[in-house]
Amino acid sequence: MSDHLIRLVPILTWARDYDRATFGDDLIAALIVTIMLIPQSLAYALLAGLPPEAGLYASIVPILLYTVFGTSRSLAVGPVAVVSLMTAAALSNIVEQGTAGYAVAALSLAGLSGMMLLLLGLFRLGFLANFLSHPVISGFITASGLIIAASQLRHIFGIDAEGHNLLDLIVSVVMHLPQINLPTAAIGVGATVFLFWVRKGLKPALRGIGLGENAADIATKAGPVVAVLATTVAVWTLDLAQAGVQIVGTVPQSLPPFTLPSFSPALLQQLVLPAFMISVIGFVESISVAQTLAAKKRQRVDPNQELIGLGVANLGAAFTGGFPVTGGFSRSVVNFDAGARTPAAGAFTAIGLAIAAVGLTPLIYFLPKATLAATIIVAVLSLVDFSILRRSWDYSRADFMAVIATILVTLSVGVEAGVSAGVALSILMHLYVSSRPHIAEVGLVRGTEHFRNIHRHTVQTDPRILTLRLDESLYFANARFLEDVILARLAGDDQIEHIILQCSAINEIDLSALETLEAINERLSDMGVKLHLSEVKGPVMDRLEHGHFLEHLSGKVFMSQYEAACFAGLKPDRPVHADT
Amino acid sequence: MSDHLIRLVPILTWARDYDRATFGDDLIAALIVTIMLIPQSLAYALLAGLPPEAGLYASIVPILLYTVFGTSRSLAVGPVAVVSLMTAAALSNIVEQGTAGYAVAALSLAGLSGMMLLLLGLFRLGFLANFLSHPVISGFITASGLIIAASQLRHIFGIDAEGHNLLDLIVSVVMHLPQINLPTAAIGVGATVFLFWVRKGLKPALRGIGLGENAADIATKAGPVVAVLATTVAVWTLDLAQAGVQIVGTVPQSLPPFTLPSFSPALLQQLVLPAFMISVIGFVESISVAQTLAAKKRQRVDPNQELIGLGVANLGAAFTGGFPVTGGFSRSVVNFDAGARTPAAGAFTAIGLAIAAVGLTPLIYFLPKATLAATIIVAVLSLVDFSILRRSWDYSRADFMAVIATILVTLSVGVEAGVSAGVALSILMHLYVSSRPHIAEVGLVRGTEHFRNIHRHTVQTDPRILTLRLDESLYFANARFLEDVILARLAGDDQIEHIILQCSAINEIDLSALETLEAINERLSDMGVKLHLSEVKGPVMDRLEHGHFLEHLSGKVFMSQYEAACFAGLKPDRPVHADT
Repeated sequence: MSDHLIRLVPILTWARDYDRATFGDDLIAALIVTIMLIPQSLAYALLAGLPPEAGLYASIVPILLYTVFGTSRSLAVGPVAVVSLMTAAALSNIVEQGTAGYAVAALSLAGLSGMMLLLLGLFRLGFLANFLSHPVISGFITASGLIIAASQLRHIFGIDAEGHNLLDLIVSVVMHLPQINLPTAAIGVGATVFLFWVRKGLKPALRGIGLGENAADIATKAGPVVAVLATTVAVWTLDLAQAGVQIVGTVPQSLPPFTLPSFSPALLQQLVLPAFMISVIGFVESISVAQTLAAKKRQRVDPNQELIGLGVANLGAAFTGGFPVTGGFSRSVVNFDAGARTPAAGAFTAIGLAIAAVGLTPLIYFLPKATLAATIIVAVLSLVDFSILRRSWDYSRADFMAVIATILVTLSVGVEAGVSAGVALSILMHLYVSSRPHIAEVGLVRGTEHFRNIHRHTVQTDPRILTLRLDESLYFANARFLEDVILARLAGDDQIEHIILQCSAINEIDLSALETLEAINERLSDMGVKLHLSEVKGPVMDRLEHGHFLEHLSGKVFMSQYEAACFAGLKPDRPVHADT
Repeated sequence: MSDHLIRLVPILTWARDYDRATFGDDLIAALIVTIMLIPQSLAYALLAGLPPEAGLYASIVPILLYTVFGTSRSLAVGPVAVVSLMTAAALSNIVEQGTAGYAVAALSLAGLSGMMLLLLGLFRLGFLANFLSHPVISGFITASGLIIAASQLRHIFGIDAEGHNLLDLIVSVVMHLPQINLPTAAIGVGATVFLFWVRKGLKPALRGIGLGENAADIATKAGPVVAVLATTVAVWTLDLAQAGVQIVGTVPQSLPPFTLPSFSPALLQQLVLPAFMISVIGFVESISVAQTLAAKKRQRVDPNQELIGLGVANLGAAFTGGFPVTGGFSRSVVNFDAGARTPAAGAFTAIGLAIAAVGLTPLIYFLPKATLAATIIVAVLSLVDFSILRRSWDYSRADFMAVIATILVTLSVGVEAGVSAGVALSILMHLYVSSRPHIAEVGLVRGTEHFRNIHRHTVQTDPRILTLRLDESLYFANARFLEDVILARLAGDDQIEHIILQCSAINEIDLSALETLEAINERLSDMGVKLHLSEVKGPVMDRLEHGHFLEHLSGKVFMSQYEAACFAGLKPDRPVHADT
């Protein structure tokens, strides 16, 4: 087997050594994850605006495909909250929810996102995700969590309310509150309170009676299953559907069907941007989880191979009645904590969900949508974390501005605009900072060959010599700044005869910077001032030679700043060695 | 007078010392520039799609205002080729050429651009122009020159031809060539050939008969005036207007009129983007010329004050029948070479042009448009310079890609798209390079305290210690790359107990990078590996302390890499001093 094949199909690296003990561990983890995933999958389908079975389908084939192509041993792939919200936001601009066209558009979105992820992986462009800075991601997740929670209030209260930003949603909920259906509200509010208690109160209680940390965690994760069972039985026995409680209803008993996404150019064109955003956000969420879990076992995930794994998983979702999927945080952590040792656990989970799709769907006929909404609200509110505001404010204003812009734009305009604003702002801020690099005027520390900032140290200078140290690579955005600084320093100062540029911190000089250096050199020549360079790094020197800069340089290039200064006429007050 | 006022109104710095000698020099320069500017102003109005007098008006009040607010002693402000082309491109998408609405929209464009320049200057945002890299500007100017030249062919041949990109224009010219008007073509081609000869052949000839460099240059610049006079007389005496030669016709004899731009929100919205592009491109052209000329006399231009000067000049153009203006290359150089010593020369030029607008316009009734087109073609083709392709290809592929993208998009789509593509590509390329910084694994050079790249030097290493040096500031785009490199290096290597990060080249750590460092620290802790830092710069250290990173760091922070390595257990084979 070629190494190349093994790299592209990571299953080959672990399937050979698979044994009975590993099988047992994987099976138990799969069972636990399956039970947790059933209500979660149904809920996220609801969030994406799709029929509940789409949630199950989206968890089956994608998991199997990720098992073959993914590199994480613990990642569980399927619908997740933020991606489901983005799916709903993207599709409801284009097609009406509940129509057949909506479900087909969801397939197209998954297919397009899958193609993009696959291409990004094959072309090794995983680094693109790095442009989503941590503050932007934190801000985005927090704002999305609030929007998702607000969007579920209509199911909690049994009212009609719509909107894609927080204000619209809240206004709409308040306007429609008179329509409230009391039995629905009782179930919805009751389930929400119960699930919050399970998270906050039950775990300490279980630890109190001696349960281990992991076991208590897993028991807590079963809370949604209990809520689903209890409310389903309540609706069934009390005939609450007649009283206006919205229920899941008939779900087809079927394995994931073979489906075809639409390839209509008009539709694809409208979906390109949302698909790209979903791909990037989904990838970032997934890779963060995968790396966190892998590091705990000194394992390794390959970001570009992860893109391929997620891409294939999404293509799988597109052809089997699903919608966009990614590696989810909560399901992966449960999988890891439950002891999954290989991606086979994922495969067993898929089998478990397939059995559920075929056999258990009649049991959820009476499941109220309010219960699913409650599980979503409790899950996403745990992601809402405003501490990033405080933290970024304390750390740096630039980071704070990126966070606040992301949160405000996400809440007021929408998820895609929010992420775009945050990314654009953080790039602009980075460029701004690097466009005004630190330039120190340096002088000789007496008795040494070292040069230090004249404003911080007592150093020897010479009025005929100006020596500057630039603490950044020179490129188009900051080259003219250097020119401004030099020209400003020279204007009106007729004594200066030599300028020495200490280049020790310059890792790169691009063509703009080269031309600026040429312009500086020429302008200095016009003034009768010589330009020298010192401590130029090897690769930068190669560039300068290649660009013919050195032929026109009025001064010289020196190995050390000290040598350059002495050449220019500096007479050290206290030479380092008497014999030099 | 406060310093603040003097900074905002630079005229105050030189007007006090104005004397008779300076006055004489300025007056002569103004006379020469005025004669050159008359045909140029008419031609650029034609290029912008406006009546000829708009070109004169755009040169009068803007020059006067720049005299008061600008910092360059030699810059001549008025219509320039590229900005006139951009004006035509922006307006003809919105209003039909030749209508009253078109002229009003030109005023609005100048007003909007003036406001933007003024605001950029007041908020000291001049650095934004730095994001237009030299290669992008070169590519853009070259491509614009070709488009401008092609757009003038219709006047040269007396045909109808339209289009905003090169291909459209050339196809249109070829399609309409059967309509050719022979007398027009004779004048157009004749004037073009004459003007090319003046540039290439006359100057050497004049130098040959003993004329000085400057005088020969100025005489050459008078070529367009000769062409204007000769062809006007030809059209008049031969009655060529009857033969179908398009002439300038009646031009109102008037000082610049007071005009009001339209403030219609719909119009302004359509003009915002073009106005921004025109402002930035115009500013970059102007500041380059101003800095080049200022440096020759060790004078100083302040980029932010230049923005204010150009902004006020454009606002002036908006209210006096003009269109967007900026500091032009050729007119400024003539002004400088002709001996202008203060901005007063500009004021005298404005007076000269005002006299021309009032008294001389009847003389140009028979001036053929083909002559103006010829002056434009000859002027812009001198800007076309494909050597940037070769130069950037030789220097770096990233720069080459930015150039070629700018040229191709400008030629095939249009000027605004071309500049945007070039800027976006150069920023992306810069981010890409800095997102994959150089990370060297370093080891101890025996007998010293220095650490060098293990792949380039014979150094001492210890299998329990991994020491890495990062040659770039850590920020969101490259922080995860560091994490990938460290995790990849550790995967499968169970010997490593200490990782030391040499931070000597790190000038900045943003919040994303801090969080990545925290994640790295935590993941290494999970593996039982300690993370140490060495040679952290002062400001970065402050940041790390402020972000509470040091409290969680599993290892320590050391002043030097050597100290860190020794702490981690490295036993130098050859200690530096026997007594340490």
